[in-house]
Formats: sequence, structure tokens, C-alpha cells
Amino acid sequence: MLYQTTNPHGGDIYGRPIRLDYSVNTNPFGTPDSVKEAVVKAADELCRYPDPSCRSLISALSKHMELPEEYILCGNGAAELIFTYCNILQPKTALELSPTFSEYSRALESVGCRVKRYPLAMENDFRLTGDFLDVLRNSNAEILFLCNPNNPTGQLIEPGMLAEIVVICRECGIRLFLDECFLELSSAGRSASLMNILKDWPGLFLLNAFTKTYGMAGVRLGYGLCSDGKLLSAMSRRMQPWNVSLLAQKAGLAALQESDWLERARELIGTQRAFLEEKLRECGLYVCPSQANFLLFYSDAPLFDRLLEQGVLLRDCSNYSGLRHGWVRAAVKTEKDNRILLDMIAEVCREISRG
Amino acid sequence: MLYQTTNPHGGDIYGRPIRLDYSVNTNPFGTPDSVKEAVVKAADELCRYPDPSCRSLISALSKHMELPEEYILCGNGAAELIFTYCNILQPKTALELSPTFSEYSRALESVGCRVKRYPLAMENDFRLTGDFLDVLRNSNAEILFLCNPNNPTGQLIEPGMLAEIVVICRECGIRLFLDECFLELSSAGRSASLMNILKDWPGLFLLNAFTKTYGMAGVRLGYGLCSDGKLLSAMSRRMQPWNVSLLAQKAGLAALQESDWLERARELIGTQRAFLEEKLRECGLYVCPSQANFLLFYSDAPLFDRLLEQGVLLRDCSNYSGLRHGWVRAAVKTEKDNRILLDMIAEVCREISRG
Repeated sequence: MLYQTTNPHGGDIYGRPIRLDYSVNTNPFGTPDSVKEAVVKAADELCRYPDPSCRSLISALSKHMELPEEYILCGNGAAELIFTYCNILQPKTALELSPTFSEYSRALESVGCRVKRYPLAMENDFRLTGDFLDVLRNSNAEILFLCNPNNPTGQLIEPGMLAEIVVICRECGIRLFLDECFLELSSAGRSASLMNILKDWPGLFLLNAFTKTYGMAGVRLGYGLCSDGKLLSAMSRRMQPWNVSLLAQKAGLAALQESDWLERARELIGTQRAFLEEKLRECGLYVCPSQANFLLFYSDAPLFDRLLEQGVLLRDCSNYSGLRHGWVRAAVKTEKDNRILLDMIAEVCREISRG
Repeated sequence: MLYQTTNPHGGDIYGRPIRLDYSVNTNPFGTPDSVKEAVVKAADELCRYPDPSCRSLISALSKHMELPEEYILCGNGAAELIFTYCNILQPKTALELSPTFSEYSRALESVGCRVKRYPLAMENDFRLTGDFLDVLRNSNAEILFLCNPNNPTGQLIEPGMLAEIVVICRECGIRLFLDECFLELSSAGRSASLMNILKDWPGLFLLNAFTKTYGMAGVRLGYGLCSDGKLLSAMSRRMQPWNVSLLAQKAGLAALQESDWLERARELIGTQRAFLEEKLRECGLYVCPSQANFLLFYSDAPLFDRLLEQGVLLRDCSNYSGLRHGWVRAAVKTEKDNRILLDMIAEVCREISRG
């Protein structure tokens, strides 16, 4: 028996023959060459321990984001930061959306927290609507977990709505854990980040990672941003000293040198997302309007299974709270890859309609 | 301000100019070429998520150690496993030696555990002596933490003594967390491992890592061995799904293919340790007899500071419980490196004696 064999996420291409993976939402361009080169170069330094303080990386991140170094804490992927955040704060009650990324509730439940869920409705294309504000105000939650754009729906939270959420959280003393891991690949880009209010509000924790933006899922490098120094210090003490590998630190440094990697990806994603959305709808599928680098859609046809038989992996979303069998998610990739996916989906839909 | 800047361990070559590092106890041969090549090759797959179940690696470890796969849990370095073990078991009281590796107590204290310490005496060359057995029996500890050979003393626990400790632990219902990270580089080698009794005693947890043995400190790869499936399963759930990076998994697989890497290192270490011990004693220093790939010694001369001025890093051991200013530790390296170290130490000692 192996542990963690029931991977609840996409990207598990192990233990089965997968030739094309649409289940992970990483940058369609993959990993920058400079990052690969940094890893190759670092192979000669493997016997060194990593810098436990990530000095060079944090200095570079600080310049890149124009934030003080003491606002930044690096982790072994974003997931380690989610778990450590929950472990330190030990909330009794937290609020999240449904559906959303499942690691928030997994981490919360591992410390005995009650997780309340606000259901997003398909009728509203899974948009966060005004009635959420009342729910939030009356939630008794200590922490609100949000993901912007939301995973798996791909919906950005409207800026006005996000501003109102911040006001209510501050009024009611609710911390906000805001996952911005997909933000820089979304149509909004970094301009929609709440980075600018970090200084004024220590209750805000922003999560980000190199995983999606720079195609670095295999390296593990995430970071949290927060002006609550006590919280970051406690989180840092709870994590082991060398949580961020030497390879990850070198790879991250190289990635931050890439000037237009994200901009070019955002351009491609914008065009290709529109193309994919249109074609999927032509197949008769419901497609959730997305501003992100992935699309959530529904089909009665057994898309996931039929594609898997051909070595093509979609993200089966039936294990998301609030979704059921038939919901799948696909990453927006390059035009060539997207056409392969569309052809396969169209073929399955045709077969089904022929009965 | 950076977090984790007060690194309590060796190997922190960052933020100061270090040209030779004797503060970390890794294999004197460094990293096998095959491991470096595996990392170089994996640079092309960085955008893939790692296998959360570490299937290939665990299968290889299982064959390598002739243990069932379900006894094995991999982590982001040994340190992650120490922290997760403590986090799951949440002991009220634990017992450890003094001095020993400081991450046990750091992890224990992070979950509010009271740490009792059994002081090892310099008069006995820091050997674990018979009176420890009574202390253990009357300790009320839920877990005993041991490191074999012990860090920083380099002393192996005598096999008879270890067998008696096991008997008492089992009688008294005390779990044993036994860190064997340095065992394969010690004179005893793997034959002194308690691996063979894992099956009979679910209360035993063995810690191991690729860090020291295969010079992979920059990659982060450790593993725990235990026949308590419930414990490993709980630990696995507490850790994030992708804690072991793709690079670490590939590097580990390559390392396990190395047939005589450890044997050759053990041979070199045996000869060089004897040489270093003798020469350090000739300088008038107290040197703790060691069976490991490092030596603990004491000098009134400011060895640490004087070598640091020349860009050479020893492990200042004054922050170990039970040791004070003047205690330093050095890794046993190749003859060339050891001679450089000895010349520098002899020079400082000469200067001091000249006044």
C-alpha cells in the first residue's frame, strides 16, 4: 500500500499512461529555458544545504513586487503555506466558496476547524454575487478563504465586490486568506492583486507560487505575503529550516529575471480561451465563463473516461464540493494542443448524439 | 527582516564569504554523478507535478531495504518527517539525549511537549552508559528520541545497550524515534540498523535521508520507516500532497542505483577520521572518539572565529544543549581537505600558545 495514492488533484500522470495532460493549469509555454538552465547549473551544488532564509530569492521577490522583505515567506510550494497558516492560527470556524480548491478545507479540517461553504450557483455562472456579503457578515468565521480567480470555475471576483469583502472582513475582524496563484495568468493580471493594501491590513494573507505562472510544479516554490510579522514569524518557526530546496531557490531567482514571460502567456491564453470556449459551446456543452487559464465545463457524455482511454487527462471535477459527475476542467494550452483536445471532445459528443 | 536568519545548524554558507565548509556532515565524495545527471535530465520536466505517492521511489526503496512499501513514507528532507511525526502524536513528555540534534526538541516544543534531557558526560566521552536505562524506565516519556550515531558526538550506541533500550521501551509503552541518518556513513554501516525489528514493533520509527549519504542536501529527500500503518497514514494526510519534489524523486531513484558509493565513502571516512583524530589530539585538543563522519572537539582557542575570518566554516556547537563555547564539530572529508583544516587549526593553536 502506498500513502497519498488517492490524489484529489489534477496532474497525476503517474501509474497510468498519459500522453497529454490538460488537468493541470500551468503556463502554456511551460518552463522558461532560463529556469531549466538554472536547475542544470545547480546540479553541481546539490550537496549544499539550501539557504534557510532564502536571502537572495526574498531580496529579488521584494524588488519584483515592491514590497518589504519582511512581508514575504517562502514555502515548499503554496500547499505548505496553506497547511502551516492553518496550523498556526487554528481557527474554529472558517468560510470558503463551493466549489473551490480543496486544500484549504483539507488543511482546515486537519486542525479540527469547522468549514462553512457558500455555494456558487451555476445559474449565475458560478459568479460571486451580492448576497454573499450578508453571509460573510453573519458567518462567525475567523478566516475567509478565497481564490481569485477561483479554481475550478475560472471566475475573477469583481473588484467592487472584493473591495466590499475587505471592508466587511476588517469590520468584523475576519482574516482574509486570498489565493492569487492564478491571478498573473488571468485576464486581470497582477493589477488586480490586493498587494497594495497589505501594509494597511495585517489580517490579509496573499498566497502565490511559481508553480503555475512559470511552469515549476516539479520544483515546489510558493510564497505568502502578509504584513503581520508575528504570524509569518510563527509560521516560519513551525516549518523546518530547509523547506525550500536549493534548486527551488535558484529556479525562482531565474524566473524573476523573465521580463515578458507572463505577459506573453496572458496574451496567448486570452485568445485561446475565447477559441476553446466557443468551440466547446458549439459541441453543446455548458462552459463556465472564465477569465483564467482554464475552463470548467459540463457534459453528460463520459468525456473524462473516453479521453483517458486515449491517454488524455482532463481534470475530473466530481470530487469538488458543489460539483458532481460530468463536470470537468481543462487547461488553456497552445493552439495545437487545444485543437487536439477539441477534436477529441467533438468526436465523443458526436458518438454520443449518434447514440 | 528575514525569517529563519538565525540558522541553528551548520551549512549556512549564505550571507558570508565561505570557501570551505566543514560544518555539514555530508558524504566526502559529494553527490554521485548519476544523481546530478538525473537532476539535469529532470530539468525538462519541471512543469510536471511530482507523483504525490512517490510510487517509483518507494518501490525502489522497498527493494533496496527489503521492506514492504507500506512501511515507507517520504518527506521533504528528514526534517519534515520529524515535524510531522511530532505534530501527529502530540506527546506531552519526550526524552532525548544532551547534546543531540536540535530539531527533535524544536519540533516537540512547537506542539507544546515537555522535553526531558539525559546529559551525556564528557568524562565518559559522551557515551550512553548503563544508568540511562533507569532514567528511561522512570521518565514517563511517551517517546524517546535517539540519533545513532549521535550528532554532534559521533558516538554509536553499543548494540547491547540499544537492545536493552528497545526492551524497556516496549515494556513501558514508550515509542522510539531513532534517527539513522548518519548510520550508513558510520563504521557500523547499515548492519547496525533496527530495520529488522520494524515488523515486530510498530512503536519504532526509523528516520533516514539521502541528504548526508548521497550528498543531496540541496534537493531535500528524507524517509521514515515504521510498521504502524495508521501513524504513517495520518502523517501522510497531514503533509501536503506534493511535499517531495519531482527533482528529489528522480535524484533519489538515481542514488539507489549506486552500488558502492556508501561503501567507498565508509572506507575513506574510516582512514581519514583516524588521521584527523590523531592530528587534532597532537594539537592538544580534546577530541570525542567518533564512529561517524564527523568529529566533535574542544579548544580554548577561538578556532571557529579564526577559521571563519579565513572563509572556513566549522560547526560552532555552543548552541547545543549540554555544550558550551569552545566546542566545535568538523566533517571528515577527503585527505586534501582534512590537511587544509589541520594546518589551519595547528596554526591557530601555535599562535595561542605563543601568546
